[in-house]
Amino acid sequence: MGFKLLRVDLTDWSYRVEEVPDEILRKYIGGRGLGAYLAMKEIPPHINPLSPENKIYILTGPLTGTGAFESGRYHVVGKSPLTGILGDSNSGGQFGPWLRFSGYDGIVVEGASDEPVWISIVDGEVAFHPAKKLWGKGVVYTEKLIRKEMKTPSEHIGSVLAIGPAGENLSKIAAIMNDKYRAAGRTGLAAVLGYKKLKAIFVKGSRKIEVVDKEKFKEESKKVLDKIMKHSISEALGKFGTAVLVNIINAHGAFPTKNWTRGTFEKAFEISGEYLAEKYLVSNKGCWGCVIRCARVSKVDNGPYRTPVSEGPEYETIWAFGANNLIGDMEAIIKLNYLANDLGFDTISLGNTMAVLRELYEKAQKGELPEDKAKELLDLLEDIKPDWGDPDSFIQAVWRTAYRHGIGDYMAEGAARLAEYFGSPDSAIHVRGLELPAYDPRGINSMALSYATSNRGGCHLRAYAVSFDVLGVPEKFDPLAIDKRKVELVKYQQDYFSVIDSLVLCKFNTFATDVPDYVGLLQAAMGWDDLTSEELLLTGERIYNLERLFAVREGHGYKDYLPKRLMEEPIPDGPAKGKRAKEAMEVYLPYFYELRGWVDGKPTKETLKRVGLEEFIDLGA
Amino acid sequence: MGFKLLRVDLTDWSYRVEEVPDEILRKYIGGRGLGAYLAMKEIPPHINPLSPENKIYILTGPLTGTGAFESGRYHVVGKSPLTGILGDSNSGGQFGPWLRFSGYDGIVVEGASDEPVWISIVDGEVAFHPAKKLWGKGVVYTEKLIRKEMKTPSEHIGSVLAIGPAGENLSKIAAIMNDKYRAAGRTGLAAVLGYKKLKAIFVKGSRKIEVVDKEKFKEESKKVLDKIMKHSISEALGKFGTAVLVNIINAHGAFPTKNWTRGTFEKAFEISGEYLAEKYLVSNKGCWGCVIRCARVSKVDNGPYRTPVSEGPEYETIWAFGANNLIGDMEAIIKLNYLANDLGFDTISLGNTMAVLRELYEKAQKGELPEDKAKELLDLLEDIKPDWGDPDSFIQAVWRTAYRHGIGDYMAEGAARLAEYFGSPDSAIHVRGLELPAYDPRGINSMALSYATSNRGGCHLRAYAVSFDVLGVPEKFDPLAIDKRKVELVKYQQDYFSVIDSLVLCKFNTFATDVPDYVGLLQAAMGWDDLTSEELLLTGERIYNLERLFAVREGHGYKDYLPKRLMEEPIPDGPAKGKRAKEAMEVYLPYFYELRGWVDGKPTKETLKRVGLEEFIDLGA
Repeated sequence: MGFKLLRVDLTDWSYRVEEVPDEILRKYIGGRGLGAYLAMKEIPPHINPLSPENKIYILTGPLTGTGAFESGRYHVVGKSPLTGILGDSNSGGQFGPWLRFSGYDGIVVEGASDEPVWISIVDGEVAFHPAKKLWGKGVVYTEKLIRKEMKTPSEHIGSVLAIGPAGENLSKIAAIMNDKYRAAGRTGLAAVLGYKKLKAIFVKGSRKIEVVDKEKFKEESKKVLDKIMKHSISEALGKFGTAVLVNIINAHGAFPTKNWTRGTFEKAFEISGEYLAEKYLVSNKGCWGCVIRCARVSKVDNGPYRTPVSEGPEYETIWAFGANNLIGDMEAIIKLNYLANDLGFDTISLGNTMAVLRELYEKAQKGELPEDKAKELLDLLEDIKPDWGDPDSFIQAVWRTAYRHGIGDYMAEGAARLAEYFGSPDSAIHVRGLELPAYDPRGINSMALSYATSNRGGCHLRAYAVSFDVLGVPEKFDPLAIDKRKVELVKYQQDYFSVIDSLVLCKFNTFATDVPDYVGLLQAAMGWDDLTSEELLLTGERIYNLERLFAVREGHGYKDYLPKRLMEEPIPDGPAKGKRAKEAMEVYLPYFYELRGWVDGKPTKETLKRVGLEEFIDLGA
Repeated sequence: MGFKLLRVDLTDWSYRVEEVPDEILRKYIGGRGLGAYLAMKEIPPHINPLSPENKIYILTGPLTGTGAFESGRYHVVGKSPLTGILGDSNSGGQFGPWLRFSGYDGIVVEGASDEPVWISIVDGEVAFHPAKKLWGKGVVYTEKLIRKEMKTPSEHIGSVLAIGPAGENLSKIAAIMNDKYRAAGRTGLAAVLGYKKLKAIFVKGSRKIEVVDKEKFKEESKKVLDKIMKHSISEALGKFGTAVLVNIINAHGAFPTKNWTRGTFEKAFEISGEYLAEKYLVSNKGCWGCVIRCARVSKVDNGPYRTPVSEGPEYETIWAFGANNLIGDMEAIIKLNYLANDLGFDTISLGNTMAVLRELYEKAQKGELPEDKAKELLDLLEDIKPDWGDPDSFIQAVWRTAYRHGIGDYMAEGAARLAEYFGSPDSAIHVRGLELPAYDPRGINSMALSYATSNRGGCHLRAYAVSFDVLGVPEKFDPLAIDKRKVELVKYQQDYFSVIDSLVLCKFNTFATDVPDYVGLLQAAMGWDDLTSEELLLTGERIYNLERLFAVREGHGYKDYLPKRLMEEPIPDGPAKGKRAKEAMEVYLPYFYELRGWVDGKPTKETLKRVGLEEFIDLGA
C-alpha cells in the first residue's frame, strides 16, 4: 500500500517526500520498528542527541486510522537526550490517524531551525510558520492559537502535536504532547524538538486509508473487536481508567511509595481510580476509534488545586505524583497533572525526579550528603521546602523545572543526573537513565526482568509482566514466586509488543488478543497473504534486537541491571515484606540471555543472523 | 571632580570612557537629571523602546559613596516600554557606591547583543562574559553564580545588578534588581536590558571617592546626619520599615483596596509593619552608609508560603499584593514578594496588574465584558481562579507572567494594556501607563495632583504629598481639604526631589532636611562655592521641565490626568467616604500650570528660557 514519509529539514524549512520500500515494511512494519531501523541507518553514532544531526521519527503503522480498533496512536523515535541511546515513545489521542489523513504515514524531522517554527500539513500541503509567538506558551494555549490560525476550532477535526516550555528549555524529561493532554512522554524526545526549535505540527486532511482486502479486513477487525469488548479488563479500564490499578497494585505491596522505600501507601484509596470516578470525573473518553475509552476527563472546581476540565490523571501519574511523593490528595494530583501536561513533562520521570529531590532534601538535613552538596542544595531550594507529602513545593518545582529556574535547572536533567550531582546516585531509581514506573519489582518479581532488559530503559511497556503476575493474562502466576516460565513470557511479550508498537496499536488490546489476531489483519491490510504468526513474532524479535544494537553501537546502555535499592534492600512493608529483586534476577537474567541468544546484553552474531539482521552483523558479540 | 561615564556597546561588546563636562554637571548634577539630559540628547525621538537605539543610563551622583548619609543609591534612566516616554527608577542597596568604587560614575548601555551577556567591572577593568548559563535564572541564583565566577562570595564586597526572567521575556513591568532584593522597579526598564540581552553587571573596586573640601564636607555631613538621626520618622522607619504606613494610611481611608474600589482594608493590621516586626522579622537592614535602616529582613519558616531569609516586603508591595488584591495573609505576601524579586518584577505594577485580572474575571462572570473577550479570558485562565483574596492564583500568575505563559503573556504587558485588551480600560488605575502606588488620592487629595503631574506616570516619588497631608512635614494639612498651598508644596517637592534623585540620595532624608542642607554638601564635594539654594532649586525645576519635554517631543504622555475611577467615583467607605478627586483637581491643576508656567501640560518657551533650557526652546508651547 506504500508508506509515505515526509522528510522535513528545519535548517532551511524545506521538505521532500519518499516512499518506504515494501520489503522494509515487511521487515519492520512501521511505527517503532521502522523508526528503529531508520534511526540505526541515519543517525550517526556518538552524536550529541541535542545537535542538528539527531532526527525525530514520528510514525504511524499499517493499521493506524484504519477500521482496526485501538488504531488511534503514533510512535516517536530518536536518540534520547535522557538515556543517550535509542529513545522512543507512543501516544494516543487523535494525532496518529490525522497524520495519515493529512497525506503522510510518517514525518522525519531533520536539522535544526534558527528560529522557532511550526508546521502545518493539510491534505498533503506542507507549510512552515514562524513560531515566535508560540514559544514559551503552554501546550493547551498553543493548540488554541494554532487552531485559530488554521481556522479549525473543532477538536474533532485535525490534530496538534506540540512541545511545552519543558521541551523548549531542553529538559531531558520533557514530553511530546498531542491533543493537549496526550503524551509521547518517555525518554525526553521533546527536548530534541526543542533543540530543533520545532514547536508544533498541525495535521488535517481527507485522505482515505486503504487496505488491500476490504472484506477480509472488516471481518478480521470484527473478530478482534469482539474479543476486546468481551474482556473484563476492557470494562474495568472504561469504568475506572488506568487508575483502577492503584488499589490492586497497592494490595500486592508493589505500589512504590516514598521514592521506592516502601511498597504500600496508606492513602492509596484516596488516589484510586474508584475515588477519582466518584469525586472528580466528568466523563470517560477514547482515542480515535477506541471502544475501551480508558481516558479520564476530570476537574477540580474549587480550592487551591482548582483545575479546569481536562484529561487525566492516569495510573502512572497518580502514582508518580502521589504515592511516590507521599501525596494522598487527589485534587493536588489533578492540578499537578494539568500543569505537567501544559508545561510538557513526562509525568513518570517528573514524579520520580521530585521524589528524589525530597530524598536529597531529607538527606541534606540529616547530614547524609557531602557537605558542599548539601549546602548547595539547600541554597538552591530557595522558598521550596520539599517535605514528603507536600503538594505546594511540587507545584513550585514544576514551574522551576520547566523554565530551568534555580533548582529546576537540575531537576530538568531528570532523576539520575539530579541524584548524581548532589552526591547520592542511588537515590534515583532508574535503568539506563530512564526513571521506573509504578510497579515495585520486589513485589512483582517478573517486572525485575522486564525493567532490567527494557531497551529504552526502565519502563513497563516493553513487557508488561503485571499482566500475568497480577492480572492473570494469559495465566495467573504468584508474583513473588521465582519461576522460569515467567522469563519466557517476558521475552514473548517483548517481541509481541514490538509488533504492537510497530503496527501501531494500543497495548490494551493485548489483554484480549494474541499474535495470530494480527496476522489476519495484516494480511488483509497489506496483502501479505503468506504472513504467519511465526514470521510476525520473529519480526518483533528482530526489532527488539535491532534496538539493542543501537546501544551496542553507542558503546553504552546495553548492560541489563536494576537499581541497587531494588536489588539489595528488602521491601519493609506489605505482602512483599522482606523481598528484594536480587534472588529473582540471579535466576531470570541468565535464562533470558539464553533464550535471546545474547551475551552480557549483546546479541551474538548467530542471533543477528537468525532474526534477519545480517546487515548489522558486525555489531554482534 | 570629573564624572566618568563608561559607554558600553553591546552590539560588538566594546566600550569607551568619557568624562562629563563640569558645566553639564552643574546644570543637571548627576543621576536622574544627568540621565534625562543625556537621554534627550542621545535617544532619537519616536524609537521603539525595545530596539537597539534605546539606551539605559545607570548613574550615580556627586554624593554617591561619599561620607554623606543615605548616599547608597543609583538611578536608571531610559525610554520606557511601559509608558513610551522617559522612564526612570531609583534603587538602594550597595550597587551605587560599588559602581563608583569600580572606577566609573555611570554606565551607558547602548546597542543590543545577539547573545546573552554579563559585564564585570573591577577597578576600571571591563570584561564581557557570555551569559547563556544565566539566562532564565532567577535574580538570587544569578547573583550567586556571578559571585562564584568572580571569586567574591562575601555580599559585603562588590555588588551585582541583574534582571530576572521577567526582564528577559520583555515584560513591561519588569524591574532592574540589585543586591538580590533591591529594585529599580518603575517604568519597566528591565525589559530594555532584556531586549539588549544584558543579564547582569558586577562591580567591585577600591577607587576612593574624593571631595574637594574634606573638612567642610565632614562638617556638613554631620549637620545633616544629626537632623536625620533626631527625626521621629527616621526612628519609625528603622523599627517597622516602610510598612509602618499600613495602619496610618488605612486609618486615613486612603489605603486602596480591591483594585481601588475601597479606601480601607479590614485586615490592614495583619499586613502591617507592626505585625511583620512581631511575627516574621529577622532583622532590619540598611543600604550602604545608612543610619535609618528601614529595610526588612524576613522569613516564613513553614507552610505553603515558606520563604527563606530575604529582604522585604516594603509598604508598597504589601499594599499592592495585599489590600489591593484583598489578601490579608502576611505569609503569602512575603512569599509573593520573594518570587516577584527573584523573577524580577516591579511589585507595584505587578500587584495592580493582578488586581485588574481579578476585576476582569469578576466582570467576565457577571457578563460585564464584551462576550468574546470574556470567553477568551476564561479560556486563558486555565487553572487559575483569581477570586478576590486568593493567594494561590497569584502565585500561579506570577510564574505565568514572568515566562509569558498563557494569561501571563497579557499580564506581562502591565495593567493598562491588560485591561484595554479585555475591553475594560477603566479597570486599570494608572497615569501615562504607569500603575499607581499605595495612596488613594480621594483620601489624600494633594496626591491627586502629585500623580496626575508626575512626569514618569503614576508615582509617589516625584512629590510625596503624603508628607504634609498625613505626616505633617513640613506642616500638617487636612488631607481632605482643598487648599491651594498644597499645590505650591507639590511643585516645590517635585523640584526638590529632582535634586535629591540627581545627587543621588535617599528621599527619607527629606523628612528631616531641606534644600539648604544640600548646598553646603555640594559646595564641599564639588567645589561649587558660589552655589545657592535658589540655583539648586532652579536646577530641580530645570530637570522637571526637561523630563516633560521628552514627552512633548514624543507627541504623547504630557497630558496631566487621573484615572476615571478616582476622578468620578466617590470612595464608598472610611474617613474619606463620598470623596472623589475631581473637585480637588479642578482647583489644583490650573494653579499648578500657573506656577509652572505650563500650558496644557507643556512648558512655554518663556519657562524654558527661565529654567535654562534654551537648548530645547523649539519644544516650548
